Order: sequence, then C-alpha cells, then structure tokens
Amino acid sequence: MTTTADFSRFSLNTATTKKWTLQEAVEGCVRAGIPSIAPWRDRVAEIGTDSAAALIKDAGLRVSSLCRGGFLTAADVDGQEAALADNRAAIIEAETLGTTELFMVVGGLAPGEKDIVAARGRMTDRLAELVPFAAEHGIRLVLEPLHPMYAADRALISTLGQALDLAAPYPTNVVGVAVDTFHVWWDPQLQEQIMRAGAESRIASYQICDFNMPIAADALLSRGMMGDGVIDFATITAWVREAGYTGDIEVEIFNQAIWDADGNEVLATAKNRYAELVFPHA
Amino acid sequence: MTTTADFSRFSLNTATTKKWTLQEAVEGCVRAGIPSIAPWRDRVAEIGTDSAAALIKDAGLRVSSLCRGGFLTAADVDGQEAALADNRAAIIEAETLGTTELFMVVGGLAPGEKDIVAARGRMTDRLAELVPFAAEHGIRLVLEPLHPMYAADRALISTLGQALDLAAPYPTNVVGVAVDTFHVWWDPQLQEQIMRAGAESRIASYQICDFNMPIAADALLSRGMMGDGVIDFATITAWVREAGYTGDIEVEIFNQAIWDADGNEVLATAKNRYAELVFPHA
Repeated sequence: MTTTADFSRFSLNTATTKKWTLQEAVEGCVRAGIPSIAPWRDRVAEIGTDSAAALIKDAGLRVSSLCRGGFLTAADVDGQEAALADNRAAIIEAETLGTTELFMVVGGLAPGEKDIVAARGRMTDRLAELVPFAAEHGIRLVLEPLHPMYAADRALISTLGQALDLAAPYPTNVVGVAVDTFHVWWDPQLQEQIMRAGAESRIASYQICDFNMPIAADALLSRGMMGDGVIDFATITAWVREAGYTGDIEVEIFNQAIWDADGNEVLATAKNRYAELVFPHA
Repeated sequence: MTTTADFSRFSLNTATTKKWTLQEAVEGCVRAGIPSIAPWRDRVAEIGTDSAAALIKDAGLRVSSLCRGGFLTAADVDGQEAALADNRAAIIEAETLGTTELFMVVGGLAPGEKDIVAARGRMTDRLAELVPFAAEHGIRLVLEPLHPMYAADRALISTLGQALDLAAPYPTNVVGVAVDTFHVWWDPQLQEQIMRAGAESRIASYQICDFNMPIAADALLSRGMMGDGVIDFATITAWVREAGYTGDIEVEIFNQAIWDADGNEVLATAKNRYAELVFPHA
C-alpha cells in the first residue's frame, strides 16, 4: 500500500519524536519525504524563533501548526496576565514560523478549584481577550477538545461541539477547532459535530494517533501509533474528508515506547500506518 | 455538620467496601445507621439470591439498586445469547432482592473491534430485546453513562444525553438513567441533560464519588472519597435535586486505599463527607 500512498498532507508533530531537537526533526522529515512539520514551542525556544523559522524554510518544509498556546484558566490576576502574555508570545512565534494555526490547550481547573462552571467562564473571557491580537497577526486560535480524562488538569473543552460553541462568536479565520482522533473518537456526537465543524468552516487541523488500551499508567501517554489501539481511522477520516477538510494531517503521539524508539523508525512506521489506515480515506 | 445531617437517603454500594461479604456489609450498614444498600451480584451469588434478600430484609435495610447487568455488545451469536441470559438472570435477582433498579454497564467494543458505530448498534438491539422481560418483572434497566475513558472496554454510553436518547423509546419505569458524579462531572452539557433527565422522568439513581487526580495507574480505580478529588458536589447535587430526584444516593467508590482500609472507618468517613458536601444540597 505504501507505494501508492501520497504523503503530501502528512505532517510530523514534533511531540512524536520527543527526543529529537527541532533540527533533528526537520532533518528526519526531509529524509523521510515528509513535507510538513508542527513544532512544539519548547523545541523552537531552544534555538530561537527566527532560527527555527529559517531552519524549517531552508529545509523546504511547511509548518502545519504551532503547539501550543492556552492554559487560560488561572484564577488570579497575575496568572491571567501571565497567560495572556504567553499566548501573545505564542501568536508572534506562530506568525514568525509562517503558520496560521496556533493550537490552544485551554487549561483545566485552577489548583484546588472545583467550580468547573467558573473555570469555563474564565476560559471564555481570556479567549475573548486574545482574539483581537490573534486577528491582528493573522493567526487562528485552534481550540482543541481534549479527552475528558484531561478535563481537570489540561482542558475544559471536552467535546468538539463545545469547542464549536466557544468558537461561534468569532471569525472563522481567527478561531477554529481541531479534530484529534485520540480525544474525540468516543463521542456519540462525533459525526454530527465534524459535519457541523465543516459546515461552519472551523476545522483547522486533523491530528491522528490511536487510543491504546489499557490506558497507560501515566494517562497522558496512552496515545498510540495508528493501528495499535481502538480507533476506526477509516470512518473518522472519511467524516473529516466529507466535512471538507483538505489540510495537513498531523501525527502526534505521546507514548514512552515510541519516544524510546529510533526517530527514523518511528517515522517509517507512521508513514506505513498512514498509508494503510488514513490516506485511502482522506 | 454531621450532627444535623439526615442519612435517610444514604445507600452503601457494596463495591465501596469490597473486602466485605454481603453479610458484613449489611452488618456494617446497620452499625452505621445506613438505611439502604446496593449490592453487587458477585456478593449476592456467594450466598444465593434468596438468602441475600432475607439477610437484607431482616436487617431492615432497603435495596437501592442491583449492580449490575449489561455487557450487551458481543459480536457473536453465542456471546449475545449469553449476555441476554445473564441479564435475564440479573432481572430476576433484582426482583428477588426487592429493588426496581438494575444498573446496566452496557459494554464496550468487542475484542479487536474498532467499529464503534456497529457496536453501539448491537447495544441498542440487545437493550430492545431485554426491555419486555424487564417490564414483565417490574424492573427498570438503569443505563449508566460511563466516563469516556471506559468507552473501549466497559461502556459505549459516554454521556447522559446519549443515555437519554437510548432510553427515549421505552416507558420511564422500564428504562432509566443513572447520574454518577465520577462519570459525568466533566460534561459541558451536564446541567442541561440532568434537567432533561428530570423532565423526562428518567433519573433512576444518583451515585456519588469523587474524581481523583492524578488518574490512578489502573484507571478503574480513580474513584475517590467525596472531597478528595475535583468534583463540585454542591452544584451537581443541586442540579439533581432541581431535576426532581428524591431517591437514594449511593456511595460507590473503587479505590485501592479505600478497599484496604477498615470498612467501618470508610463508612464513617463517607457519612461525614456526605453530611458536609452532599446532604445540604440534596
């Protein structure tokens, strides 16, 4: 199957090859014939945003997104100002890197907090404050629903429908949503909300990785290589296609065994699985 | 606070005191002044349903529910017939025990399966087949949405809204839904769906336990004592009250440290936390 696959929409999210520096990831993509990359900010910061932008551009790669902004839910004024400052910096970094898409992991409850309704209110308020700055810089804030197991500590957006509701007041080129198979595969409203996201022109990214069972002891690391878990990539990919998405497809896997493996082998496996499970339906 | 609390709606789900036999749990409830119990079938089976019914009745306790039927999603005919037979047995057991409420953990994907849409279809079909038998015996099948982290292996019902949609074709005294704080606290539609459940007369049980962070290495054991995790019991309990629910409130906790503790101390702590966090809002 790999011989007939086309990797023109394949993007490496650098979290997948966590051991690699940005330069190593760029070189890995070039070796593997992968045309697109989604860097994480920590790897960008190591060499500086301008150098990172030049590195990626000189290698002939495009940037599918920057991961990530967010964590908007601080309860105290200092925390809120710090969050806004960090997100404004991320917007500038995204612009410098030449991508329009900035992933937003919106944050969870404040330490010790139990009032999820209030926390969601702060998330909504901070988003409203960031939107004008993002718009000025031509950046789209990509709201990412995370699996509900991360609601307390990472993201109070748990479903695609909720992300779309939150995005609704804003222009489609300033606030979008992500479809990440790991986070949304279980949602009984998934097909309906993917179609809605398409109809509302909100799909800013399609990220793929599997949901491994049993859940890893560190719940954050249950993301798996496509095909290793329970996700039906054919069906979800077809829904995303039917919803009109034609952009890059990012492979983003947090998994200790994959992090421990050789990055080139990880890319080779990811390409094979993409060719087999995703490309025919995309 | 405990001095003013009323425990007339407090029910011990026997999973909370996992080490105890049914007789020990009944005796523990009597000692603690707990009027209601929700036995698991394995502890009932150890002494036989008739003996269990007599034991509970003689102790002056009522049975708030039987846990549990379900696991309806087998893909093969033998598995489907076995599931129906087991659920019919559970219905008879519930009737014998003198409860009208049989919890249903509906089951996940079949082994190796990835087609969640097909699996949900089998769940729907098996439920339809069970409803007449439940109705004949005066038993309500209580559809329990489980946290999405259990979608693959335990329950393809992940939200209260989905459970209500599934229940909709059936009489309210034959198919109901459960609100278990652990499973639903994260749901952005929670208030709306609890109100809907009340308006549709479907709330068959309110179960309480906390969502502990970080998630336990065995994800099934992240249930915590009320107050130890991130859940806002005041708000959710008030919603359940506003929705019109006046039945028993079951404490159901799967947690290794709680299982390792002395059962009497667990009940004492649960009563204190109930008095502090739940009773004032119920």
